[in-house]
Amino acid sequence: MNKNISTFIACDADYDESSVVLFGAPFDGTTSNRPGTRFGPNAARLESDGLETYSPYFDMDLEDYKTFDAGDLEFCFGNKLRVLTEIKEMTARIIEDNKKPFMIGGEHLVTLGSVEALVEVNPDLHIIHLDAHTDLREEYLGERLSHATVLKRCYDLVGDKRIFQFGIRSGMKSEFEFAKNTGFLERHLTNLHKVVCQLKDKPVYITIDLDVLDPSIFAGTGTPEPGGITFNELLDCIIQFSNLNNIVGCDVVELAPQYDVSGVSNVVCAKVVREMTLLLHRWKL
Amino acid sequence: MNKNISTFIACDADYDESSVVLFGAPFDGTTSNRPGTRFGPNAARLESDGLETYSPYFDMDLEDYKTFDAGDLEFCFGNKLRVLTEIKEMTARIIEDNKKPFMIGGEHLVTLGSVEALVEVNPDLHIIHLDAHTDLREEYLGERLSHATVLKRCYDLVGDKRIFQFGIRSGMKSEFEFAKNTGFLERHLTNLHKVVCQLKDKPVYITIDLDVLDPSIFAGTGTPEPGGITFNELLDCIIQFSNLNNIVGCDVVELAPQYDVSGVSNVVCAKVVREMTLLLHRWKL
Amino acid sequence: MNKNISTFIACDADYDESSVVLFGAPFDGTTSNRPGTRFGPNAARLESDGLETYSPYFDMDLEDYKTFDAGDLEFCFGNKLRVLTEIKEMTARIIEDNKKPFMIGGEHLVTLGSVEALVEVNPDLHIIHLDAHTDLREEYLGERLSHATVLKRCYDLVGDKRIFQFGIRSGMKSEFEFAKNTGFLERHLTNLHKVVCQLKDKPVYITIDLDVLDPSIFAGTGTPEPGGITFNELLDCIIQFSNLNNIVGCDVVELAPQYDVSGVSNVVCAKVVREMTLLLHRWKL
Amino acid sequence: MNKNISTFIACDADYDESSVVLFGAPFDGTTSNRPGTRFGPNAARLESDGLETYSPYFDMDLEDYKTFDAGDLEFCFGNKLRVLTEIKEMTARIIEDNKKPFMIGGEHLVTLGSVEALVEVNPDLHIIHLDAHTDLREEYLGERLSHATVLKRCYDLVGDKRIFQFGIRSGMKSEFEFAKNTGFLERHLTNLHKVVCQLKDKPVYITIDLDVLDPSIFAGTGTPEPGGITFNELLDCIIQFSNLNNIVGCDVVELAPQYDVSGVSNVVCAKVVREMTLLLHRWKL
Amino acid sequence: MNKNISTFIACDADYDESSVVLFGAPFDGTTSNRPGTRFGPNAARLESDGLETYSPYFDMDLEDYKTFDAGDLEFCFGNKLRVLTEIKEMTARIIEDNKKPFMIGGEHLVTLGSVEALVEVNPDLHIIHLDAHTDLREEYLGERLSHATVLKRCYDLVGDKRIFQFGIRSGMKSEFEFAKNTGFLERHLTNLHKVVCQLKDKPVYITIDLDVLDPSIFAGTGTPEPGGITFNELLDCIIQFSNLNNIVGCDVVELAPQYDVSGVSNVVCAKVVREMTLLLHRWKL
Amino acid sequence: MNKNISTFIACDADYDESSVVLFGAPFDGTTSNRPGTRFGPNAARLESDGLETYSPYFDMDLEDYKTFDAGDLEFCFGNKLRVLTEIKEMTARIIEDNKKPFMIGGEHLVTLGSVEALVEVNPDLHIIHLDAHTDLREEYLGERLSHATVLKRCYDLVGDKRIFQFGIRSGMKSEFEFAKNTGFLERHLTNLHKVVCQLKDKPVYITIDLDVLDPSIFAGTGTPEPGGITFNELLDCIIQFSNLNNIVGCDVVELAPQYDVSGVSNVVCAKVVREMTLLLHRWKL
Repeated sequence: MNKNISTFIACDADYDESSVVLFGAPFDGTTSNRPGTRFGPNAARLESDGLETYSPYFDMDLEDYKTFDAGDLEFCFGNKLRVLTEIKEMTARIIEDNKKPFMIGGEHLVTLGSVEALVEVNPDLHIIHLDAHTDLREEYLGERLSHATVLKRCYDLVGDKRIFQFGIRSGMKSEFEFAKNTGFLERHLTNLHKVVCQLKDKPVYITIDLDVLDPSIFAGTGTPEPGGITFNELLDCIIQFSNLNNIVGCDVVELAPQYDVSGVSNVVCAKVVREMTLLLHRWKL
Repeated sequence: MNKNISTFIACDADYDESSVVLFGAPFDGTTSNRPGTRFGPNAARLESDGLETYSPYFDMDLEDYKTFDAGDLEFCFGNKLRVLTEIKEMTARIIEDNKKPFMIGGEHLVTLGSVEALVEVNPDLHIIHLDAHTDLREEYLGERLSHATVLKRCYDLVGDKRIFQFGIRSGMKSEFEFAKNTGFLERHLTNLHKVVCQLKDKPVYITIDLDVLDPSIFAGTGTPEPGGITFNELLDCIIQFSNLNNIVGCDVVELAPQYDVSGVSNVVCAKVVREMTLLLHRWKL
Repeated sequence: MNKNISTFIACDADYDESSVVLFGAPFDGTTSNRPGTRFGPNAARLESDGLETYSPYFDMDLEDYKTFDAGDLEFCFGNKLRVLTEIKEMTARIIEDNKKPFMIGGEHLVTLGSVEALVEVNPDLHIIHLDAHTDLREEYLGERLSHATVLKRCYDLVGDKRIFQFGIRSGMKSEFEFAKNTGFLERHLTNLHKVVCQLKDKPVYITIDLDVLDPSIFAGTGTPEPGGITFNELLDCIIQFSNLNNIVGCDVVELAPQYDVSGVSNVVCAKVVREMTLLLHRWKL
Repeated sequence: MNKNISTFIACDADYDESSVVLFGAPFDGTTSNRPGTRFGPNAARLESDGLETYSPYFDMDLEDYKTFDAGDLEFCFGNKLRVLTEIKEMTARIIEDNKKPFMIGGEHLVTLGSVEALVEVNPDLHIIHLDAHTDLREEYLGERLSHATVLKRCYDLVGDKRIFQFGIRSGMKSEFEFAKNTGFLERHLTNLHKVVCQLKDKPVYITIDLDVLDPSIFAGTGTPEPGGITFNELLDCIIQFSNLNNIVGCDVVELAPQYDVSGVSNVVCAKVVREMTLLLHRWKL
Repeated sequence: MNKNISTFIACDADYDESSVVLFGAPFDGTTSNRPGTRFGPNAARLESDGLETYSPYFDMDLEDYKTFDAGDLEFCFGNKLRVLTEIKEMTARIIEDNKKPFMIGGEHLVTLGSVEALVEVNPDLHIIHLDAHTDLREEYLGERLSHATVLKRCYDLVGDKRIFQFGIRSGMKSEFEFAKNTGFLERHLTNLHKVVCQLKDKPVYITIDLDVLDPSIFAGTGTPEPGGITFNELLDCIIQFSNLNNIVGCDVVELAPQYDVSGVSNVVCAKVVREMTLLLHRWKL
Repeated sequence: MNKNISTFIACDADYDESSVVLFGAPFDGTTSNRPGTRFGPNAARLESDGLETYSPYFDMDLEDYKTFDAGDLEFCFGNKLRVLTEIKEMTARIIEDNKKPFMIGGEHLVTLGSVEALVEVNPDLHIIHLDAHTDLREEYLGERLSHATVLKRCYDLVGDKRIFQFGIRSGMKSEFEFAKNTGFLERHLTNLHKVVCQLKDKPVYITIDLDVLDPSIFAGTGTPEPGGITFNELLDCIIQFSNLNNIVGCDVVELAPQYDVSGVSNVVCAKVVREMTLLLHRWKL
């Protein structure tokens, strides 16, 4: 009798034959407001069973592609340096095996681990960042490694004019100014099309903090910020991303399932994961 | 002392003098994901007390029209054939008495009972179907009678080019293809105006699966599907329906109240029922 | 050791140096549907700690302005006349001290207390009213003082052509007609720009019933009414208000926190309070 | 076609043939803490459908007795004097027709209306009171008519040594002292047996504030008070009450359904109503 | 890289080396009141990660024993005959392989499948049944196979004086009488010790409907019935069961996780599963 | 106008005149299961307004005693060493000023900070520990400072035979053995009376992890453990504690308000704080 396998829907191929690898990073150790994203990746995985495998947006079916869901990393709780190291190692292994990494958070700090691994093999890495918050502080509550500083730490790795932020509607004045000087930031999605054209052949990492969505459709997150984009706007972003020729990895972060007892936030996350997985499959490495 | 009567707000006329008859079909026996629509019709009925009877959209007041709320059918639980028969008989009696039937679900399978009764007296019946899901499978989990097959069963009754589907954003690839070949399906509402013109003088049944709405405004349903229409878009559909000269009946289905503890989904359903009831009253039979 | 002070974020200046004064009016004694707005002002106050003090919309920071949060008034429960008197006295004292009053409800009836105080010193007072409901009944359930009559009572004080209502989508037919004859009412925000131009140099009181928002983003209220405006539309209203040269006070009412267990409604209210506070600070008295 | 009747389970006899009459008193206008008992009687009525009609405790079946459920009184909201008058009139009519009144609250103040009617025909009325709170204040927040003063107002009607309080664990020191001097009060149920013996042939009114139960089993109430009795202890009280030969009426109050989303509190209330109804039926008038 | 295995805590041994086999039966197709036990077994599995593997009650540690968790059976939804067949086949295979079956429901009807398999190899099978409800109807809502008839169907298989029911506090009068005549039924646990002595060397199947617990500790079930046993009383039952020398299998049923948003019911179920698993391990087959 | 002071009910004396000082320690940084106790102290503070100030158990009234509520410590999030230092300093200052410290958690690790301060001035410190969990691990997930190790760290400070644990029903086998060898541990409260006698004149610190209570009455905690004590049993403990002549401080920890949407857990915590505060006042220093 076989053991009970639990994967994101239709992501049950063997590792060796898969071109995309999902893994969960259930960490929320620096969350300063409402914690709980540690339960995010598994909630999305479970909820995915209620989805169809077919996407009418991409006219693609998950069952036609090989994806491996590695489950959640098991973290030594409370040690963020070690957490980031484990994420980096996981990402490094996946890209070494010529597959695309797709991480499901967890809080936003986990992005740093993946970016560290990817920037080593893609020195010209660019980042597209969808979020409600700037996440550009130099430090937060005395800490340099935090969900509120993660894009600044990524900036330290990739440098000027490499980070493109959309949907941003909360932060300190100094963060908004930093973004304008060193990268690109807008509250809406007006210039996403231009940015995608500009980055068409660059190595691009996409990080989606789901709180970029309006809390009306995504209440299950630690710091909901009213005034966000709609689900269809996010879908349109993902469809636009299919014009990028070199997406090297992605993540979807900040689902905290317990704050949305209706379960809708879990469905939203699962559906975004479905579409992003299909996006990664559009081009084999 | 009179017994305690419980009706949808202002739908307390006597049966004989009423031109519209509401009834609940509290069945969710084929729901494969999250069950609970069995509690939908009564939740909408109770919530309606918080509504005004006046609709500023139609500039009509429920109190100016005669509507009979028959309460919920009492089903022999778990026997879907018998459930469908009871719905068919109820619908048949209402149309025999020269009134318009308005059923509140329950899961979507209940629509089949009403359509069976209506197609017998309206061989040229057309169906306008608002939903997130295609519901066009030939069978689902081995069953031909299911919430996921109900429009296919209706198709078996009404035939080609009789079903017009709007808001659809989830299904199998084969369902989308079937719809394109045999009827009409779109994700948005772009062509609703054209369809309404086309069906102006046809006998039309309208079935509204409330999950056509975005889960942001309607979380209380078994299978929420992000990316739906707004409440105002649904209102606009209903207003467009007033250009149809021969609406022979309608239903509103898939409220599962327990998944939305805020109660908003109940209000949404009740308000849709108010507007649809007024729509049915615009022309007496 | 200092006592534990609890204020809306960054509204901790001393009274004497402040130009804006916040206070809570935790009253819901005439609420006929779902009660609970008595807990609204404190819920918004507590939630505000999760906000940034900087507004990217106004490019202003709460920390750059002096605001005093007086906490909640302590009402003799159940005596609405006395409640209104206490609100009137509080408002009168604030304007006497040459500061701008900002009240957080509570149910909508509390607005009457503030308007009574303000109309005494501003005989030409105009009111901009954002709401889902007309609130223009002459009496409600036999009472002349009610959340459902409050704008009619204000009308009794300010007279014809002084009240401008936006977002209204529920009421009795007679209320809609009264509004058209004696003031201004629309379901959308189409003419807000014109009204703001027209009232540019008038003394204006702004009352925001948060149920003007769609329940998708603001479920935490007693009588949610689907079909409302989005959060960004409300923000745009507030930005338009900055063209008014003589805002004499404002209120934000009808948060009932317990109906939205996700906490999003609290955040929405807190963010509206932040923006409205900044609006009041744009011109010193 | 018959209208939709909604009653407590198996309480659907005609008024004339019934010996017990249930009615709801959906009032919570003096509730100072968490409101919502206005929704209590209907929630219990709806939940009762999930119960069996047979009680293994009394070995009696509701279907073997004639009970009339009059539904909820419709109150002019916010006017407590008028509310009390309507309750008194309803109770008076029921006892005039030689039936036993059973009121479901609503907040505890409603008890006063019933007691006023009953004391007129039973000058020697005694009251057994199960509650967490003394409810013996002379006035509360400036009001003499309040959920917190209701037993004191009853005392004003029935006088010394007529009120017997059990389960009491919260109140002011002066209330506890008043109770000791003028009646009987205990935190537990130790002396209930003695009191029942003592009142065996007296006219007795029983008022059960469900917050006498521990909040573990009854969370759905405005002011839960830990340390209460278990459900089985309450059942044992009811069984002991069957030794009283002249119960002239009763009430069950303080269910506020929205605070217990599990629905358990509704079931608890419904089951207590079933047992108390059967208790009233044990002796015909 | 290995696939993501999901098991009840410490139940991750290989099938061949295991002496106890857990499996989930996620079926609630005949639930007439509040549905949702289909989500029970997985909720318990996930929650078990928060438990210790060591039981201070038995002084045993799950990690010292070999248990295989087969995951949930995948049912053809809505076809109860086929569901029962699949359960019977699973149970039969486990006992054929000389292991003990432990099924986690789902609704109570699933018990019938296991009992059918076990009675074939244990013609003298006895059943100990902990429940709030008799479950002894001949048919329910026209159906002979139902959660409300399951023990009657078991009686049809095992015959007189084979079923021992404890904790029962709800049912029809005729069911209570049937139980007294043909088996054993009590509301409390008074005679459990005697029954255990009597069945010491008999083949015994234990079925625990968790609604035998008071809803204070187990709200997450479809039909909560106040007046149940405490968790410690249930633990004491399980400890008493260790005096049975021939337990041939067991089940734990009726967790419906969504009705208890606190998650406590999931923990309760998981802890009962831990203790019952250890009980089954006390004697190897 | 005075600023808005927020304190636990009736704990609003000036610091200098107070003999007991409350403070919150809103830290949950090492919580491995469900986080959220960071919101505990403020939730208890707010909920206390619904309590009476009079305790019928002690026949004492909070208003007759001077207590200072210092509010919550503001922690540099995520740095547990610094958190512990701030707690230690706060405690040290309070005892230096000849007052009794009462800390409200937060997770259990915060106890260590207080114990460190108290053991310095009370080398013979004894600890009475009420909890569901042993909390005696040497390290947990690689960390020596954790909610799961806190009593072991206290043991390192106070040594053998100084720690007395009650209510314990979860832990590793080795922890139970350690406790038996070096201190005292029992699952029930059987020997509490003896222990209190034994420690009558010793300096005693009392730490109450509220999960010692059964989750039926206290669901609002990260790791609910069924089988706990009742609220009345906890009250009886507190009353027994009044036989201790030298209580040097205490804490109440592990309220995580968001897991109990009924609010009952907040009330439970607030009532325990009321009783414990009165306990500390029974003897002035």
